[in-house]
Amino acid sequence: MPQNIGNQTIFFEAGPTIAATAAVVGQKEGEGPLGEYFDKVESDEYFGQSTWEKAESAMLQNVTRLAMDKAAVSFTDIDFVLAGDLLNQCTSSNYAMRNTGAAFFGLFGACSTMAESLVLGATLVAGGSAQRVMCVTGSHFCSAERQFRQPLEYGGQRPPTAQWTVTGGGAAILEPNSRPPYITHATVGKIIDMGVTDTNNMGAAMAPAFVDTLICHFNATERAPDYYDLIVSGDLGSVGRAIAADLCKDAGFDIQNNYNDCGCMIFEPQKDNMVNAGGSGCGCGASVLCGHLIEQLSLGKLNKVLFVATGALMSPTTTFQGESIPSVAHAVAIEN
Amino acid sequence: MPQNIGNQTIFFEAGPTIAATAAVVGQKEGEGPLGEYFDKVESDEYFGQSTWEKAESAMLQNVTRLAMDKAAVSFTDIDFVLAGDLLNQCTSSNYAMRNTGAAFFGLFGACSTMAESLVLGATLVAGGSAQRVMCVTGSHFCSAERQFRQPLEYGGQRPPTAQWTVTGGGAAILEPNSRPPYITHATVGKIIDMGVTDTNNMGAAMAPAFVDTLICHFNATERAPDYYDLIVSGDLGSVGRAIAADLCKDAGFDIQNNYNDCGCMIFEPQKDNMVNAGGSGCGCGASVLCGHLIEQLSLGKLNKVLFVATGALMSPTTTFQGESIPSVAHAVAIEN
Repeated sequence: MPQNIGNQTIFFEAGPTIAATAAVVGQKEGEGPLGEYFDKVESDEYFGQSTWEKAESAMLQNVTRLAMDKAAVSFTDIDFVLAGDLLNQCTSSNYAMRNTGAAFFGLFGACSTMAESLVLGATLVAGGSAQRVMCVTGSHFCSAERQFRQPLEYGGQRPPTAQWTVTGGGAAILEPNSRPPYITHATVGKIIDMGVTDTNNMGAAMAPAFVDTLICHFNATERAPDYYDLIVSGDLGSVGRAIAADLCKDAGFDIQNNYNDCGCMIFEPQKDNMVNAGGSGCGCGASVLCGHLIEQLSLGKLNKVLFVATGALMSPTTTFQGESIPSVAHAVAIEN
Repeated sequence: MPQNIGNQTIFFEAGPTIAATAAVVGQKEGEGPLGEYFDKVESDEYFGQSTWEKAESAMLQNVTRLAMDKAAVSFTDIDFVLAGDLLNQCTSSNYAMRNTGAAFFGLFGACSTMAESLVLGATLVAGGSAQRVMCVTGSHFCSAERQFRQPLEYGGQRPPTAQWTVTGGGAAILEPNSRPPYITHATVGKIIDMGVTDTNNMGAAMAPAFVDTLICHFNATERAPDYYDLIVSGDLGSVGRAIAADLCKDAGFDIQNNYNDCGCMIFEPQKDNMVNAGGSGCGCGASVLCGHLIEQLSLGKLNKVLFVATGALMSPTTTFQGESIPSVAHAVAIEN
């Protein structure tokens, strides 16, 4: 049974098993350094659909089907699906899951959604409310760009601090404790807003939320950073990653040796100037976790991973109204 | 410990207590038939802010503070807040909760959010993950109108099937089983899309989801409709209510005698032509539940209530792209 151990943290003594995961990405992500780890690289940015929003939804359908195939289950075997995305009213998730017969919890955590869905999914499974759940999220460069930034056709220049929204999705199926990898702890984040207003520098806006959640996690678990083989943020990018590492050091937690960021792992900014500070979006952390990291855990190349997905919770409307960017980060400890 | 009893339903043997609730509404709702039950009726539609979106956020801050006052707790006593709303990227919830110190789960269930937050909140408390959670949602007529329909200044005519988004919010604090009212069962809805495309007739779009969840609930609990003193939908309005009752009857469940809809209760369409088919929005079910129904339960005037909040999960973008309206409904059984 799960147990709240303070500092926003839930301890799963018999942590749910991550039974299967799948990741689907676009062509650009498939050509990146993690390309070989994704279950499917889709060369058609429309995923066979007529609009980018429908493409994003088709991608999520795709990744849920792949994860179910790997777990040899169907929707009738899954008690609840937990999903969300960046689109207004989370429509890529809603439309992906309509008429599938899946009982559905819709989430909004922006780019923290993969971690949020794992936290809630783990509490449902470990707490007795479900035998099997599926956690899903993703993002699409083209739909995000036109909703949050500019029409693609405009060809707007982006500053070096800006990140590139990953076209990709991830799905994870959780079951009661049977075999590794397990979810052992979850630390739920507070919404933190340090006054950053630059929507082309989301890494700076989100880094303080990442650090706050990390410190809560260390305090709750009495673990030091070096307990983990890898501490990985969702999409802080190179700018946010540097800020996060500095803030952690100032707080007495040195994460330099075992910290990386999914946004820095999925692209090679040195080779691809377009991505600027690295990847971002719900699909960044989701595809790197569900494609790459879970495989590393399965192979024993990693044994203790702290996955901390971060989300920037503003909208274009709040930005136009002069508001700063509130952020959140949720941490999920995954261990063999 | 919660138990999944099939048919998408969780049974809480020691159901969490609804320790306190609060409801805040606008002037129009305060002048309606339930006016006396709301904790606060705000005559300033801007809630002291400069924009409607900020007003909606201030309203949510307001209602959370009132609920905490009634439970004699502060944010430091609450493990997790679960909240969501209708605004793009759920910004009224996100901004309401920033820098409060509350660990936060963001939800998107459109107008089903109050029920969704109660389901997840109950599983967290009953499953051992939390000692106390707060569930919050709301909507604002003016922010919803300009985001989903037309600029208010345009003065557009609305057809008789259209509903009026409630300006209101509700908050509920859940604690481990100690005194009534308790949450005893929760049935999580599937996303159902019967092909309705008329965004001015959301009741028709959402009614099938309501009926599907209701039938799952009856089958899982082996209860008949007359088990409950009141079965209440969140915001089907008069059109959706009639469709829902008919569909239930066709399926062999007669709910005519003990069924009502929060959208039909909060306004008097006979007296107020503007509201057409009745109230809608996250704040409709939330304020009627947290203001009126919980008080009726506390007074023993009602003892067994099935609260079924319904959500239409489309966005203006999907509507413009020719999509129909997927819907969801979650049921929460609240008993003394």
